[in-house]
Amino acid sequence: MVKKVGVAILGLGVVGGGTYQTLVDHHDFYLKTQQVDITVEMVLDLNLERIRQLGIPEECVAKSIEEVLANPNVDIVIETIGGIGVAKNFVLAALRDGKTVVTSNKELICKFSHELEKEAKRNRCGLYYEASCVGGVPIIRTLLDGVQANHITKMMGIVNGTTNYILTKMTYEGADYAEVLKEAQKLGYAEANPSADVDGFDSTYKLSILSSMAFHTKIPFTKIFREGISAVETKDIAYGQEFGYTLKLLAIGKNTENGIEVRVHPTFIPSSHPLASVNDSFNAVYLTGDAVDDVMLYGRGAGALPTASAVVSDVIYAATHTEIKYSTFKNSAQADSNTKFVSNFESAYYLRLLVDDKAGVLAKVSGILGKNNVSIVEITQKGSPDEATGRVPLIVITHKTRENAVKNAIAKINASGIGSVEALIRVEQ
Amino acid sequence: MVKKVGVAILGLGVVGGGTYQTLVDHHDFYLKTQQVDITVEMVLDLNLERIRQLGIPEECVAKSIEEVLANPNVDIVIETIGGIGVAKNFVLAALRDGKTVVTSNKELICKFSHELEKEAKRNRCGLYYEASCVGGVPIIRTLLDGVQANHITKMMGIVNGTTNYILTKMTYEGADYAEVLKEAQKLGYAEANPSADVDGFDSTYKLSILSSMAFHTKIPFTKIFREGISAVETKDIAYGQEFGYTLKLLAIGKNTENGIEVRVHPTFIPSSHPLASVNDSFNAVYLTGDAVDDVMLYGRGAGALPTASAVVSDVIYAATHTEIKYSTFKNSAQADSNTKFVSNFESAYYLRLLVDDKAGVLAKVSGILGKNNVSIVEITQKGSPDEATGRVPLIVITHKTRENAVKNAIAKINASGIGSVEALIRVEQ
Repeated sequence: MVKKVGVAILGLGVVGGGTYQTLVDHHDFYLKTQQVDITVEMVLDLNLERIRQLGIPEECVAKSIEEVLANPNVDIVIETIGGIGVAKNFVLAALRDGKTVVTSNKELICKFSHELEKEAKRNRCGLYYEASCVGGVPIIRTLLDGVQANHITKMMGIVNGTTNYILTKMTYEGADYAEVLKEAQKLGYAEANPSADVDGFDSTYKLSILSSMAFHTKIPFTKIFREGISAVETKDIAYGQEFGYTLKLLAIGKNTENGIEVRVHPTFIPSSHPLASVNDSFNAVYLTGDAVDDVMLYGRGAGALPTASAVVSDVIYAATHTEIKYSTFKNSAQADSNTKFVSNFESAYYLRLLVDDKAGVLAKVSGILGKNNVSIVEITQKGSPDEATGRVPLIVITHKTRENAVKNAIAKINASGIGSVEALIRVEQ
Repeated sequence: MVKKVGVAILGLGVVGGGTYQTLVDHHDFYLKTQQVDITVEMVLDLNLERIRQLGIPEECVAKSIEEVLANPNVDIVIETIGGIGVAKNFVLAALRDGKTVVTSNKELICKFSHELEKEAKRNRCGLYYEASCVGGVPIIRTLLDGVQANHITKMMGIVNGTTNYILTKMTYEGADYAEVLKEAQKLGYAEANPSADVDGFDSTYKLSILSSMAFHTKIPFTKIFREGISAVETKDIAYGQEFGYTLKLLAIGKNTENGIEVRVHPTFIPSSHPLASVNDSFNAVYLTGDAVDDVMLYGRGAGALPTASAVVSDVIYAATHTEIKYSTFKNSAQADSNTKFVSNFESAYYLRLLVDDKAGVLAKVSGILGKNNVSIVEITQKGSPDEATGRVPLIVITHKTRENAVKNAIAKINASGIGSVEALIRVEQ
């Protein structure tokens, strides 16, 4: 039995436009394979030129959100505006009117899922957001219905395409950060103001959503330790490679006996790790569960059609399931009261120092590290003395220790007069 | 609101035992995170020693399938017996009695899904089989509810852990097939009679299930071209590596304009392809959809707990969804009447020849290939003449051509008297 479903699309940018095209092009395919007859009843966008470009018939063009919501043929509202201004108001209004909402808006879900889910439950309509994380990769569906039998103990994700593109270029072409960023901006892979991507904000929004689902408690993005890639130097990537490591901006979540650890930062992983070969704008999430062991999902984390794939898969899911399973955010902006967060987390470290080229310096560095509970796997001098300062680069790889221990040791080295720590990169296995 | 669900487990082998453990160990976790109270009401297995080992209370031990089905507390029947003998009868009996079935049985689903789904629909109960393909990796859920917005045009899978383990050892340790097989048997990774794995039967069952779902028509396993790994020589793997290729036993499905292509055979893929680094007993499926582009799911394809993860995730899904979405097998043992199968498929090829060490031989080989529509990318002599025959090895990499063209060319070369084709390996990009 075929089910008739009307949708409205709010916002016809890259994702909204891709969604419109996908729905129109696949109408007969969905009718045949999914027994759903999906029609785009209305669209809403201020840019009328864009509406014309997409060839949207005039009778579908709404002038206001009220007009969209007053249309009895609209069952599902797709929000692809982005941001937390009008997008939030429109989504809340749609839910209040009992319309199921499908959104690609990571910032909205990250910051306001509790409000939105409360409204959705109250009005018995659905709220779907597969497209908010990792584009076309069905990571949300997997967490909800694919690996829900597991205590998820760890997740590591490459969840931002722009930074992965930049780091890939720095790794394999030896280019500098500033140079690659400029190129990425020219190609449209990075925004004119790249902060949301390169400073890791985008990754923290996604980690907040994914770790909340994986760990069954709300993880506010403000609890996430964040360090971007703008200070990464190409030479550290190259030195890391010599030690068998590849640099990625990872979103890391761990559910340990001591509590939950959530952090986004440049990370060295063994070059043989499956995440190490996720290159360019590809994304991947690597999960560890107590039954399933390791699972990785890989694919395009952005782009019009890959993201539309997630939006439309949600639309079909919503259209073919009258029962709604909400996530486990529990309508709260905060974590459960019994959730502990670990900020002084455990990690191994890569350090690059510049030290005096004198006898006894190595012993002094080792001594300071040891006294601060930082034990050394390997310490190597790299290259020849700097002409101006006469100092030599020293690479240290540490065993697992605590973040505070390393920070203390670095302060002591910098104060010792024998040299300075020029780079710190965390290492995961 | 907590939902109470009783399950019965039929067969307590590796997967059944792992499922029992997972359900018992996670009871409170599922209660808290999924609002389901799942209890194992009954188990059925001839091996009473195994039941004791697992510490199953006596009152849960059934003596017959009738006793299981007569128990009104059993809502879901888990079938982890395997094979198509009693397993089929038990599953059909359970469905007839209106019990939802969760199974890990690939052969049963591959060969009898049409009968089982018909019975399930008739009695309005569910039939779930995530665990039948690729262990804990949620590939079935992904096809049903993650990428269903796409025309899937291609899938390539490493879906058998035993053969991937053997090929990995041959690739990275240079060991011979027979030697590695013996070792795998000693470690319990391969059966005493390894045919189901090494001859590719297991992979064809899984490809039949996955391609049926991806292409929305039943793909009987008898339509799948099948070639195992027992004739693979380690030297061809090594030569392939020199050309930038890695050898994998791939399950390949393509939905092309000319029809559907389904095949299982040793395949060279570029060593930079994400599937090339799926090693040991890990499995992965690489999908291409018209919107999502490329997606890969990676994880453990077998083992007690990874497979139990899939079984139990299905149990939780069944328990929390009263609505049932059936797959698109359409109750038929055969493909739709308008489905075309392509047996004379298109591929690139790696050929190893032994040819006379004489002037003009290269030109003759090239001539025969050319006359048979096989165009050459590269032709290289490898190593020195064989002492006994005086013949030299020649490696040929071809452009894309048709399977029949290559087979014809090989017959001509073998009949020409100038040499013989010793190895043929298909190449995918």
